[in-house]
Amino acid sequence: MAQKPQIIVIGAGFGGLIAAQHLAKADVEVTIIDRNNFHTFTPLLYQVATCALDSSSVAYPVRSIFRDHHNVHFMLGEVTDINHQEHCVMVQSGEITYQKWYDYLIIAVGSVTNFFGNKDAEEIAFGLKSASDAVRLRHHILRCFERAAWAADEQERDALTTLIAVGGGPVGLETAGALHELYNYVLKQEYDDRLPRLRARVILMEATDKLLAPYPETLQKSAVNQLESLGVEVLFNATVTQVEPDRITLKDGRVIRTYTLIWAAGVKASSLAEKLGVTLAERSGRIPVEPTMQVKERSHVYAIGDVAHLLDEKGQPYPMLIPAAMQQGELAAKNILREIANQPLAPFQYNDKGIMATIGRRRAVAWLYYKVQLSGYLAWIVWLVFHLISLLGFRNRVVTFASWVWNYFTYDRSVRIILDSEITPRPNPATPGALQTESGEAGVKA
Amino acid sequence: MAQKPQIIVIGAGFGGLIAAQHLAKADVEVTIIDRNNFHTFTPLLYQVATCALDSSSVAYPVRSIFRDHHNVHFMLGEVTDINHQEHCVMVQSGEITYQKWYDYLIIAVGSVTNFFGNKDAEEIAFGLKSASDAVRLRHHILRCFERAAWAADEQERDALTTLIAVGGGPVGLETAGALHELYNYVLKQEYDDRLPRLRARVILMEATDKLLAPYPETLQKSAVNQLESLGVEVLFNATVTQVEPDRITLKDGRVIRTYTLIWAAGVKASSLAEKLGVTLAERSGRIPVEPTMQVKERSHVYAIGDVAHLLDEKGQPYPMLIPAAMQQGELAAKNILREIANQPLAPFQYNDKGIMATIGRRRAVAWLYYKVQLSGYLAWIVWLVFHLISLLGFRNRVVTFASWVWNYFTYDRSVRIILDSEITPRPNPATPGALQTESGEAGVKA
Repeated sequence: MAQKPQIIVIGAGFGGLIAAQHLAKADVEVTIIDRNNFHTFTPLLYQVATCALDSSSVAYPVRSIFRDHHNVHFMLGEVTDINHQEHCVMVQSGEITYQKWYDYLIIAVGSVTNFFGNKDAEEIAFGLKSASDAVRLRHHILRCFERAAWAADEQERDALTTLIAVGGGPVGLETAGALHELYNYVLKQEYDDRLPRLRARVILMEATDKLLAPYPETLQKSAVNQLESLGVEVLFNATVTQVEPDRITLKDGRVIRTYTLIWAAGVKASSLAEKLGVTLAERSGRIPVEPTMQVKERSHVYAIGDVAHLLDEKGQPYPMLIPAAMQQGELAAKNILREIANQPLAPFQYNDKGIMATIGRRRAVAWLYYKVQLSGYLAWIVWLVFHLISLLGFRNRVVTFASWVWNYFTYDRSVRIILDSEITPRPNPATPGALQTESGEAGVKA
Repeated sequence: MAQKPQIIVIGAGFGGLIAAQHLAKADVEVTIIDRNNFHTFTPLLYQVATCALDSSSVAYPVRSIFRDHHNVHFMLGEVTDINHQEHCVMVQSGEITYQKWYDYLIIAVGSVTNFFGNKDAEEIAFGLKSASDAVRLRHHILRCFERAAWAADEQERDALTTLIAVGGGPVGLETAGALHELYNYVLKQEYDDRLPRLRARVILMEATDKLLAPYPETLQKSAVNQLESLGVEVLFNATVTQVEPDRITLKDGRVIRTYTLIWAAGVKASSLAEKLGVTLAERSGRIPVEPTMQVKERSHVYAIGDVAHLLDEKGQPYPMLIPAAMQQGELAAKNILREIANQPLAPFQYNDKGIMATIGRRRAVAWLYYKVQLSGYLAWIVWLVFHLISLLGFRNRVVTFASWVWNYFTYDRSVRIILDSEITPRPNPATPGALQTESGEAGVKA
């Protein structure tokens, strides 16, 4: 009996997950490798960071998703190298390094925060790309407020309650909006036991003269209005040149004291892309692929989603958005099955339903099919329903919905516990430095 | 205008919280100091550790509890010293040390895991006394199973899936039962994609020849039967003499390979008790108190709950249980108000409603008012209803109930995400080493 084709999917994000789900139905063996044992519903990370949702509401264990598919395996670990000639990847899992062979490889490792070479920002600012990022930011904000409550110096107190988001894209907007709501509806009430009362400032900074660059001007202006009606200060033409732990300096010389800088100014492809040995796209570091999602000059290797670089009919790279990643994941899976069956491969065609961004309670903008413009309450309802439907796993949907309804009617946020300070690593169950190659049952190269 | 009496409560556990709630209604200023910004519902920690509940479901922010009481303040920090002559405590909060003066002090710092001097156990074994403990244990177990899924060596694989609880009290029982359910209903299904399948062993070890020492023999035997019917191995007369990261050795020479040892063999008073300079109770390290809950030989200082040592009519110390702590907290608060009003103080009278312990789904034992013996399904319902009613905060009750119902009907546990590996401390907002004394508005000694 011939061995089943071995397919490795690196990354359990939206693209990787959809690819694996399509492959699961075929007569192949799939191994998903991810640094986390869960898939993250990234669009709601800002809600975890602002105490509205538990991290487990936006994270779903990969093994649960594939519980009924015995041809799908999961490995917790970090891929440290790809050897496309030998058809294998190296996986660091705890202190053990595994060598895994593949017949086909899908690289779906996504993107990371782009600090554009600003080392201080990288060290000090908070990204918002993972569940850990979100939990870390939540702990930090709560701790800043705890310190502010007892700080004797007024400037120090204000610095501790000044929260700045950099970047006028959807993540910057929704984070700034949610931060102001967290302060206005929750923290303000809970820190009012002593005088002078704590005042929070939430600032959204954008380097250009407008928010939400790809949106029509009406929606851009609506977004600014909605943010300002919440109480968020919007600063245009503001470029951060220097980041220190307790302050930032702008290009025009202004200094703002803050302990909390959230960096939502851009993303770039994950660094694993460099291991392929191909010339990556400039600036974004994405892997150039054929319209079939095959990596150029690397046979049997596919790349999808944020890490893949493919130009559309207008010569623009496809956006680093979830729908594109999901559609590319599906295509990559189908094309691999076509390769196995010796059938011709299909090219990528993007089914783009439009874009939307949320700003806060009853505040959002949406541009459906690039035709219908919505803003305010209606856009928010559309945003809410869409994300709820997209949340993986029935339990998560129930809990998320319940949390949202709860927050909406009570203005309460109960997920306000600081846990990280006491989390320290425990003794490790693996033998240090051992190199383990896999045993007979699966994944050995035919 | 005379300044209001300043009362400091150290510890936001059950005793401290009840005391503060009673004081909140009086014309005094209360400051609660705790290492965490939340109260922990400790009886359900084992459910957090076994993936059934989110940590936020058993943790409630202290500031939320006292949101409507402007005379109650909260300080996040660790009390490092008590100066009973100067009437002040030192609080380490981040890198700042605060000095806080009191007119009355309530020490409600509870207990910690007692490793009975076994340094290796202290280093390697897992306690289950705090939300951090529970989350750490959860991450550890999930990571062990992930490693077991790819481990080539059979003995190593079995060691990774052998889970041992030490101590035949309620915590040991419920942890062992819940661990076996986690394996049997969830993990077994999710790790069955490769052969040989993972087998888990859950062992409960007890140094004497019976479980649940204070219970009648019928219930003790029922508990053993219920545990064994689940699949838990119960070892009597088993004393752990040596603990290593990958194995334990018993007194009789037996060696059991395991990476997961949960230490539920006993507790002792928190070490802050030593700072009072009084002679502590032998073995338990508890602070001797008068029947009024006043610390002997230390005026204006009260101690309550697990950290307080007081003998009942039979000459036995009151048990380290939540109902005792809550009743002592109420009494301490009332006695302080009586002291302020120059009224005679009242002595402690324990209203003891009985004891109960849960073992698993539809499995428990209860001894109500030391008269009615219940076991099995009925005892479990009593246990469930009692704990649900006791959970602080409406939202927590709703979420906890929903999670329980969910787990009961689906046998699913969705809170299975490993987050700790990426949680690293961020730059700290406080000036290193600064000593800050409080400013004028509150807490200055009159």
